[in-house]
Amino acid sequence: MTTYKDAGVDVHLKETLLRRIRDHVASTHRPEVIGGIGAFGGMFRFGGMRDGVLVASADGVGTKVKIAELLDSHETVGADLVDHCINDIAVMGAEPLFFLDYFSAGKLDPGRFERVVRGVADACREAGIALLGGETAEAPGLYSGTDYDLAGFIVGAVERDQILDPGGAREGDALIGLPSTGLHTNGYSLARAIVSRAADADRTEPIDVLRLPRHELRGGTLGQALLEVHRSYLAEIRALRKAATVRSIAHITGGGWEGNLPRALPDGLGAVVDRDSWIVPPVFRLLAALGDVPEDAQWETWNMGIGLVAVVAPEDERAALRALPDAVAIGRVERASRVPRVRWA
Amino acid sequence: MTTYKDAGVDVHLKETLLRRIRDHVASTHRPEVIGGIGAFGGMFRFGGMRDGVLVASADGVGTKVKIAELLDSHETVGADLVDHCINDIAVMGAEPLFFLDYFSAGKLDPGRFERVVRGVADACREAGIALLGGETAEAPGLYSGTDYDLAGFIVGAVERDQILDPGGAREGDALIGLPSTGLHTNGYSLARAIVSRAADADRTEPIDVLRLPRHELRGGTLGQALLEVHRSYLAEIRALRKAATVRSIAHITGGGWEGNLPRALPDGLGAVVDRDSWIVPPVFRLLAALGDVPEDAQWETWNMGIGLVAVVAPEDERAALRALPDAVAIGRVERASRVPRVRWA
Repeated sequence: MTTYKDAGVDVHLKETLLRRIRDHVASTHRPEVIGGIGAFGGMFRFGGMRDGVLVASADGVGTKVKIAELLDSHETVGADLVDHCINDIAVMGAEPLFFLDYFSAGKLDPGRFERVVRGVADACREAGIALLGGETAEAPGLYSGTDYDLAGFIVGAVERDQILDPGGAREGDALIGLPSTGLHTNGYSLARAIVSRAADADRTEPIDVLRLPRHELRGGTLGQALLEVHRSYLAEIRALRKAATVRSIAHITGGGWEGNLPRALPDGLGAVVDRDSWIVPPVFRLLAALGDVPEDAQWETWNMGIGLVAVVAPEDERAALRALPDAVAIGRVERASRVPRVRWA
Repeated sequence: MTTYKDAGVDVHLKETLLRRIRDHVASTHRPEVIGGIGAFGGMFRFGGMRDGVLVASADGVGTKVKIAELLDSHETVGADLVDHCINDIAVMGAEPLFFLDYFSAGKLDPGRFERVVRGVADACREAGIALLGGETAEAPGLYSGTDYDLAGFIVGAVERDQILDPGGAREGDALIGLPSTGLHTNGYSLARAIVSRAADADRTEPIDVLRLPRHELRGGTLGQALLEVHRSYLAEIRALRKAATVRSIAHITGGGWEGNLPRALPDGLGAVVDRDSWIVPPVFRLLAALGDVPEDAQWETWNMGIGLVAVVAPEDERAALRALPDAVAIGRVERASRVPRVRWA
């Protein structure tokens, strides 16, 4: 006799899980949310715009979840996911409205699930976004052990004439960088490979490499540095747009600098960036040293300390820097007819 | 020396993959879509409603992907995903607008990726939905072998006074069922466990169980039956609403009948369903026999041949049946003060 439970899926457990997160989810609901939790779709009233454009993005947190797993630290991957998604639509000029998550595991562990989804809900509430729905999947055999995957979907809105369009960037525009908190959610497979290699070299385990206090990190551990939460730049983008003419913005994520900065520029333009204008945070230098990672590969993979680059009218550079206390002038837009479009000064 | 490629992630491969699907994605774009592929977020103009409500849902296809994997058949899981999402918001009364997908694998295989995402795009185009974006993640170590996970996210819209609300259902309302094409996207872990057990019993492999022609399936194979595409009920729901007063609709998905039909009913009401009013398709009976699955467990897991149940005003029952050639009258709404809320006549 085969039942669903024998097959590794416990339908009643899933109901229990949903009860566990119900209050967290409800705490994110804005006045626009209609109906309760448990409907087939989440509902959000939307109107009152002159020429409204919805902006949507899907993202994951990559293998940062594997670091969370190793360190049994699941409280912050939810914020990583939400903040990554917020930034992706905020750089288009949009204000975030609602979010949905997808949590998939071979075996649903109630405690872990609640820790992760509570983190998603907390980050949504903090940003004023409704957690409108989500899917929780138990997929025996797809993930090994207690592994899980996490993806998120965000929807925001912007008036059409307020869209930040790469086409607006011009030669001579100023590039304003905002510090990252670390790797954010990109480049973790490389970081994990480095940790494994370092463990092998020391005849120890990855967990030991992650837990060792390090003078390069002021006594902190690599594990802590790797779990630093992806920074949301929503408040900074709002402040910047009030203070300056912002042409476009790049979120420095997977693919590093060359993979992202040109996405905020039209064809024919590139960027010249002075890498001495900020100090690369020690976590990147430590990883690079442990893994003997070539300089180019570092910049093609990680954000290297700058998570967001705004393209600002040159006459507004000072105003932009005044509006954002931790912003740095990092370079200029220039002509570029070939790749790479990011040139180091 | 460690580079991202050594770590199992090939950034340039990812660019190649995106080039491969660019045309498929672009082919789904409706006039409301602004901007090209490659922006940080997808943009969709939205307006012109009196009191518009956005309806969103996230879903996966569960371990149906493992069956696709076993049979090396990846063309239709995309349609499964899209159709599942369409139904989830269509039962709320919404018209679908756009879709985003999340594809995650341990190792990105270009051919497989294109087969899957092309299926997503084809299903979107067929339904008139824009494939507005998506995320492709290469997560070494999270999935074994060539496994992948697939999730989707849909946004639609409905005028507030056109929302299908469970609160509208009344005692005595008619239940109109629409046939499914098979398991749709739910109950695959149970199906896979049954296939494995049957393989063990016959001292053969699951693939052989899936490929054996069976008289119960008119010479077809269990593999074919398990990969039948999740049916989209969008056209039927539109036709039904024109012909009849529809109170609410349930999409029979994970959790089977008791898990879904009550979601279309207010507290205090349940359903009495005559299971003799349709013939349970042979794939369910075959699986149940192979796995010795108790009758109750079948109905708590699978849709058993009816994928959608509409709650219709009793005086419109005939009109509803006339509007939908393959619809069946399956029961009535009745008072129910306790669980289970679905009673078999």
